[in-house]
Amino acid sequence: MTPLAVSLGDPAGIAPECIALAWARRIEERLAPFFVVGGAGVLKAAAATRGIDLPIAAIAAPAEALGVFGDSLPVLGEEDTPPGFGAPDREGARLALHSLERATALARDGLAGAVVTGPIAKARLAQIGFAQPGQTEYVADACGVPHERAVMMLAGPSLRTVPLTVHVALSQVPALVTHDLIVTKALVIAAALRRDFGLDRPRIAITGLNPHAGEDGRMGQEEIEAIAPAIAELQAQGLAVTGPHPADALFAASQRASFDVALCMYHDQALIPIKTLDFDLGVNVTLGLPIVRTSPDHGTAFAIAGKSVASASAMIAALRMAGECAARRGT
Amino acid sequence: MTPLAVSLGDPAGIAPECIALAWARRIEERLAPFFVVGGAGVLKAAAATRGIDLPIAAIAAPAEALGVFGDSLPVLGEEDTPPGFGAPDREGARLALHSLERATALARDGLAGAVVTGPIAKARLAQIGFAQPGQTEYVADACGVPHERAVMMLAGPSLRTVPLTVHVALSQVPALVTHDLIVTKALVIAAALRRDFGLDRPRIAITGLNPHAGEDGRMGQEEIEAIAPAIAELQAQGLAVTGPHPADALFAASQRASFDVALCMYHDQALIPIKTLDFDLGVNVTLGLPIVRTSPDHGTAFAIAGKSVASASAMIAALRMAGECAARRGT
Repeated sequence: MTPLAVSLGDPAGIAPECIALAWARRIEERLAPFFVVGGAGVLKAAAATRGIDLPIAAIAAPAEALGVFGDSLPVLGEEDTPPGFGAPDREGARLALHSLERATALARDGLAGAVVTGPIAKARLAQIGFAQPGQTEYVADACGVPHERAVMMLAGPSLRTVPLTVHVALSQVPALVTHDLIVTKALVIAAALRRDFGLDRPRIAITGLNPHAGEDGRMGQEEIEAIAPAIAELQAQGLAVTGPHPADALFAASQRASFDVALCMYHDQALIPIKTLDFDLGVNVTLGLPIVRTSPDHGTAFAIAGKSVASASAMIAALRMAGECAARRGT
Repeated sequence: MTPLAVSLGDPAGIAPECIALAWARRIEERLAPFFVVGGAGVLKAAAATRGIDLPIAAIAAPAEALGVFGDSLPVLGEEDTPPGFGAPDREGARLALHSLERATALARDGLAGAVVTGPIAKARLAQIGFAQPGQTEYVADACGVPHERAVMMLAGPSLRTVPLTVHVALSQVPALVTHDLIVTKALVIAAALRRDFGLDRPRIAITGLNPHAGEDGRMGQEEIEAIAPAIAELQAQGLAVTGPHPADALFAASQRASFDVALCMYHDQALIPIKTLDFDLGVNVTLGLPIVRTSPDHGTAFAIAGKSVASASAMIAALRMAGECAARRGT
């Protein structure tokens, strides 16, 4: 068993306090041992804003985390920054980036069982040379996986969804909804739900792009030209795939029991239902990587950092999911 | 006080049994008196499939409904068809259309306090000459209201949403998201929520079109070019309008309390959250008409008609909302 590596996220955001809260609840939440890369002083200060006197254990190698995790939060590496919750700066962005880089590398090199990434401010990291649009793409690049095979899944207690297309303007979505992309991503999803989530034959519900899934072509051709043929091909390969489903009715309680994951055509189609149902509990997990990577599905939330109001539920859920997936892989 | 007029919907669908169930629960559900236009035999047969011995009172004028509603379901007009649940035919489509036409006319002429429309099969009605894409447009035409001012709102216990654009392919949506359409529909919404829903200064949350509402133009220009200017104009007119909001986070429980209605840019953006939260309880209400019109937000559901499984909750909610709106208008 190897511990989980946690990247600090932006030290001016809510990630440090959420990590501290998660460690404080490690027993009742049944969390696997984890360590944080860098930011010992930030973590201690963040814990203090939540009334926690956080014991920190400086470790020199990931494996040391296992022995100390019960009594203190293990922190690997000396890099730190003066606490400034709600006031992001260049130094903090640098710390966030270095923490992400090292935590990812440790997971990739087998020294950590998974990487759990704290939220960063993408625009700020871009200013100091971060070239990827987000952490998902960074981790994919670090593992040598093409972006279309590193699949973002949002998972909450009620639902799992995957957006086929992610951070593009809605006007660009229809041209990106192709047979090949649907097949590629569905195959990644099916393999990952088997390996990491213990679902022998995961049921994948695929949505239509248009209202009522196009109503036989009366409102758009994408279902006929791309989505239905992709579903037929996936079914021919033996996958438990259904659709194209009208997206509006797919997420009602009575429908959710009929699938394990919904592959949606675009960002809001996938994220509206999960944020509507599981707002504070969503985990962002990257499927298709050689490593396990999860993240709480929220941002840096600078506006509430250090104010004792941030919820650690998503961070705790991300840590628990990372531990469970890593255990299934036997890492 | 005038009774509500209910159109039968397709007699082969679930509307007749839902109407019968609603009448049977008229007291505990505190429903205002209503009558159905046509279909006495169908209603009696539909009630029998639910184990109800439905007393029918044939009435010759709407006002007669008030006196008999306590003891029997008032039905106006002789037109009927042999029961055939789950097996729609041309004769049934004709009955559905005539019932819709007469119920709407009675509301328009002030003889009914509102019209509550049972679901029809649009494709079947089109075969017998129904020219509109749906009942909303039919009722608008019957009242002489331009389609862009007859605004479809979905209302459930958790949420109210309005789709700016409705039954069009997703690829056509961006071009239809215009400053003028947003202003026009928001003004209709504000006036209707004041008049019919008793909200003095309704709070309207307007979504963005793109992921994260475009992130300052990084993913699409519609927020900058159309949506934000429309919001500014509405605010300048004194309306309580906010946005453009990222749609994915707007429908979480913590956010829903901040607005009375969400004006969304397209069909699934508006219908996913309400169907996810309030699947069996959604009411489709048309704002901006000289009459009150509501409908249960479900279809004919031929597959389950007559099988004793259909839920009457949405029909009951539609009847109750129609009664409440009509009472606020003093009709």
